[in-house]
Amino acid sequence: MKFVAEALHLSPPAAKRLEERNLLREAFVKHSFFHDIVSAYKLEKKFGGFEEGTLIAKTKHGLEVVRGYPKIRRALTLHPTIKKHFRDEVVVEEKMNGYNVRIVNFGSNLYAITRRGFICPYTTEKAREMIDSSFFRHYPELMLCCEVVGKESPFVVKDIYGTDLDFYIFDVREKRSNRSLSIDNKMKIAEEYGFKLAPILERCDTNVAHEVCRDIIERIGNEGREGIVLKDPEMKINPIKYTTSESNATDLYFAFRYFNDYGKDFMLSRLVREAFQSFEFNENESKFKERCERIGKAILESMIKSVIDVSCGREVSEHHRLRFSSLEVLELFKVHLIRMGVDVRFSDPYHDGEKYVLEFRRIMRSTTDKISHHLKGNLW
Amino acid sequence: MKFVAEALHLSPPAAKRLEERNLLREAFVKHSFFHDIVSAYKLEKKFGGFEEGTLIAKTKHGLEVVRGYPKIRRALTLHPTIKKHFRDEVVVEEKMNGYNVRIVNFGSNLYAITRRGFICPYTTEKAREMIDSSFFRHYPELMLCCEVVGKESPFVVKDIYGTDLDFYIFDVREKRSNRSLSIDNKMKIAEEYGFKLAPILERCDTNVAHEVCRDIIERIGNEGREGIVLKDPEMKINPIKYTTSESNATDLYFAFRYFNDYGKDFMLSRLVREAFQSFEFNENESKFKERCERIGKAILESMIKSVIDVSCGREVSEHHRLRFSSLEVLELFKVHLIRMGVDVRFSDPYHDGEKYVLEFRRIMRSTTDKISHHLKGNLW
Repeated sequence: MKFVAEALHLSPPAAKRLEERNLLREAFVKHSFFHDIVSAYKLEKKFGGFEEGTLIAKTKHGLEVVRGYPKIRRALTLHPTIKKHFRDEVVVEEKMNGYNVRIVNFGSNLYAITRRGFICPYTTEKAREMIDSSFFRHYPELMLCCEVVGKESPFVVKDIYGTDLDFYIFDVREKRSNRSLSIDNKMKIAEEYGFKLAPILERCDTNVAHEVCRDIIERIGNEGREGIVLKDPEMKINPIKYTTSESNATDLYFAFRYFNDYGKDFMLSRLVREAFQSFEFNENESKFKERCERIGKAILESMIKSVIDVSCGREVSEHHRLRFSSLEVLELFKVHLIRMGVDVRFSDPYHDGEKYVLEFRRIMRSTTDKISHHLKGNLW
Repeated sequence: MKFVAEALHLSPPAAKRLEERNLLREAFVKHSFFHDIVSAYKLEKKFGGFEEGTLIAKTKHGLEVVRGYPKIRRALTLHPTIKKHFRDEVVVEEKMNGYNVRIVNFGSNLYAITRRGFICPYTTEKAREMIDSSFFRHYPELMLCCEVVGKESPFVVKDIYGTDLDFYIFDVREKRSNRSLSIDNKMKIAEEYGFKLAPILERCDTNVAHEVCRDIIERIGNEGREGIVLKDPEMKINPIKYTTSESNATDLYFAFRYFNDYGKDFMLSRLVREAFQSFEFNENESKFKERCERIGKAILESMIKSVIDVSCGREVSEHHRLRFSSLEVLELFKVHLIRMGVDVRFSDPYHDGEKYVLEFRRIMRSTTDKISHHLKGNLW
């Protein structure tokens, strides 16, 4: 791990602190598929100026630091928050609902790093197949920050984007400094290399942005989409995010479906958002009733589904179905999941004529046990 | 505080532990109204066999230990919990929604002790006016465990019981040992001394109790009442409680109205109850829709009310209106509230022709500040 201190340019006391605080964890499973990498660690928490999820790798070609994707803070009300936060103009992009991945190039291969800093075999295989790597020959110092969305997701399974799996780039950043290219430069690069971008919905005057955003939020909410990210066109100011009620309801559905495995902060924050939005949108009685029912239903329907599962002798679990080009990568992904500490049951892989298919269930142990305990007649 | 160790019969090491763990807090404000008491402490947490809220008092007439009211655990499902927990027969009592008070006699005066172990001047004045103290001449070693309910409550303001303030006894216990009289003995005492009891709704075979209780819960829920407590007729087994959906919704209303001042466990546990109840009652679509709307509305309406309060420049607060016979006790109660650490604004007392009236607002500082912060455009 000595190379980590060197790569991060840490002073000896800082290096000692890093070690004592036990903030490093191995970021990948050694395998020929990742053959450029000799050793790699990820930051479990923010350390100094480095974000949680920062990857530090010793590769055959040199030391690499890939900064973690920064936390995007949230507006509870559109007004006056947008006006207070940005300068004259603001860009409104769609916040897609998938998982956050940074794609980088080591040697002559792409690597896909998840938000927490793990190198994911499945996403790496897909990135190598779908992302034009010539980009990295021209810009080796950059990383592509993407939302990976679709039905075949190991994390957030979504059918609304009409795809099995796809990469939507929302930021192009320097991997070492985390400095972001401007929106215009990002658009140029996307056009040049044929990258898909998270939709840029609007560019408007900060004074009217709250009205523009409200219209967008209501429209995309009706389509079940997640929300928006507001950005400074020059990317000199940190972006902020804001979500639709429909997306909050979906979050609540998952949080309560697995209520003993999820954090209570997650639940409360989503409920508080709803209250601020309902207040700001000053909605009429029938819209408000719809919102109450949507939220109540998300909370109860999900928990009841889990109670029913357990009462029928099933474990509470989340089902995934992924397809791989290589059986070897499929097996590597299984090891990766176990290494990540996920409690998981795999089905036997099979070939569907085109790809190798892996189905697995992520077991929600704590929720399953809690429900089972009470169904047996034990007290709270 | 030396008398505490003596009263509790603590060994010297136990006495030392009690002191070191800082578990004692003064339980009353010195005043001629409490003239029997020389000194009194309450247990801030469970210690050894003594419940949280246990009062230890040095009175002019000797040492007194008044055990804290034991925590009553909760059934998440009626079946098989009741059958598993009780013997042949179970008594179903109404769980009223007020505040829990133990009434004891020191010297020749009654004292009312709240759940946490404070001697409350307001409740003590009311107890001395409304409870026949001759009971304590015959049974000096007993305490009356009451739910104090009504509109003029310093804690839980409720109009459904059609009273300004009243005492409903649910247990008669030995103050020193916490041993409870049987239901029959409690009923005899209530009849003899004219005490009101928390309604005894049913006494039934444990095998059918879950069906009986379900009917009761649906009926009293429609009337906005809180729930039931199930008891062993002999009171040899700990009681268990179960609440109506309407009461859960009311709890949620308060929890979310003051969302940053309340614990998240409180919120989650009430939501989980709803899911188990809906599952067990196997309700039809329209009942389920009603439940979702009730829960969603309780959560959102309450928070929105608080957001509106703050947006209009008001603090989020809870209003109370209490009436006292004695102006001196009124002033003592004000000191008591401040001593308890409540953030409170008092109006000037006035006389309504019959009583001295104190109105006050309990300020929810954390919720007020949090909302204000976000309404100003600050990020989450």
